[in-house]
Amino acid sequence: MSLSQLWIIKIGGNIIDDPAGLNRFLERFAYLRGKKILVHGGGKIATRMAADLGIEAKLVDGRRITDEAMLRVVTMVYAGLTNKLVVAGLQASGCNALGLSGADGNTIEAVKRPVGEIDYGFVGDIRPDSVDADAIATLIEGGFTPVFSAITHDGKGQLLNTNADTIASALAVALSARYSTSLVYCFEKRGVLLDVHDEQSVIPEIRASQFDELRASGVIADGMVPKLHNAFDAIGKGVDEVCIGHADDLHLLREHQFGTRMVR
Amino acid sequence: MSLSQLWIIKIGGNIIDDPAGLNRFLERFAYLRGKKILVHGGGKIATRMAADLGIEAKLVDGRRITDEAMLRVVTMVYAGLTNKLVVAGLQASGCNALGLSGADGNTIEAVKRPVGEIDYGFVGDIRPDSVDADAIATLIEGGFTPVFSAITHDGKGQLLNTNADTIASALAVALSARYSTSLVYCFEKRGVLLDVHDEQSVIPEIRASQFDELRASGVIADGMVPKLHNAFDAIGKGVDEVCIGHADDLHLLREHQFGTRMVR
Repeated sequence: MSLSQLWIIKIGGNIIDDPAGLNRFLERFAYLRGKKILVHGGGKIATRMAADLGIEAKLVDGRRITDEAMLRVVTMVYAGLTNKLVVAGLQASGCNALGLSGADGNTIEAVKRPVGEIDYGFVGDIRPDSVDADAIATLIEGGFTPVFSAITHDGKGQLLNTNADTIASALAVALSARYSTSLVYCFEKRGVLLDVHDEQSVIPEIRASQFDELRASGVIADGMVPKLHNAFDAIGKGVDEVCIGHADDLHLLREHQFGTRMVR
Repeated sequence: MSLSQLWIIKIGGNIIDDPAGLNRFLERFAYLRGKKILVHGGGKIATRMAADLGIEAKLVDGRRITDEAMLRVVTMVYAGLTNKLVVAGLQASGCNALGLSGADGNTIEAVKRPVGEIDYGFVGDIRPDSVDADAIATLIEGGFTPVFSAITHDGKGQLLNTNADTIASALAVALSARYSTSLVYCFEKRGVLLDVHDEQSVIPEIRASQFDELRASGVIADGMVPKLHNAFDAIGKGVDEVCIGHADDLHLLREHQFGTRMVR
């Protein structure tokens, strides 16, 4: 039996922070046919809100720390303001969006990151087995389009700040048992570029077997290495394809014309 | 065919603002058997948050106005912070809570209040036909316990601040076609009192036919008149019973020992 298709699409803060770009994206997302999930990151609103409230952003060795005050702010902004603006925007375009944190329906239960050299505070780590695929499939089959903010919980009453890229990947892996899952990351470039200075040089497809070669030759370097490593890791765990490209190209997704496509 | 029972329970700001009282309530709500919905009001967190952000509370003739800045604050606090704290707290007690605004799943579509003598700003008015009973029943039958914050939308992308009492009542009426609905208001007293100075003088049951008599004799006066008027209005529109009492007594609900029960 062939599984039905499910899109898991992640947008980052760069889209959230640009009202016109966000509206363009939401329209494109709404018009994408089929079953789908949206995962959104934070953006600068939380940082600005914290500053306005006199809460200092805490950094240790350049890493962001989520103390109690900052957890309140990100819960308000990510799960409240941003999530509801996205949901209301999608509803206006006819997409039956339903906003979630990991606490809602116990969809994603995380573990508070253990204190090692750095105490990250209220940060939650998740794995695919943190995801309740049954609960999420119930929502999808009920006609809803889940919209996840980057907030989870530990199942004992504690909310946790959680990386949105990891949420998207864990959702795609966990749901790959019952759907043919495509994981889509929208970022600020058109895709993986052969020449980093030429936006037209998008590599349309990368197979797992080509990844090591592209890395050795230096075509894939710097920030793209972990991105692609995570993509092939998800594919190794059951995800059908991982696509990476610009939010403005989302309408080209179904025709395989969106950015770079990573496959087995 | 007899309909299955559905509890719609509303708590106000007085419970939200008292952490110990809120925890007691959430445990009692979690342990209440059967299908249920929670509706929560705001509390003082939004007012404090607005003050901390330098946003002035606007009042015209003693009425609260929801301008754009205040809408952002109530969206963050009601649909974000408070809703997710309540959901995570219920999950910790084994209740599969799922937080919603009216925008989520298009469950409650409101109309922005027309500007008359007062411009209330971004305030949404709802009626029972604003409620998508199908969508909510899908969630309930899917095993979720919906937790509504007092934020709705107009279906065109605009979020709206909406009275939580009215949301609870509209939900109970709209869902009475497919469930035997009990609407429960938790407030700061044990119920409707025969003697307002004696907390022990709770009237256990009031029938619609007795309402006019109790009002004429002055037993029901002041703030209780509109509360009871709305209760009997909901009963007239299909709700089985409306109960009003103290959150701490919620565990007595199934035994008809909770506060005052209004029936046909």
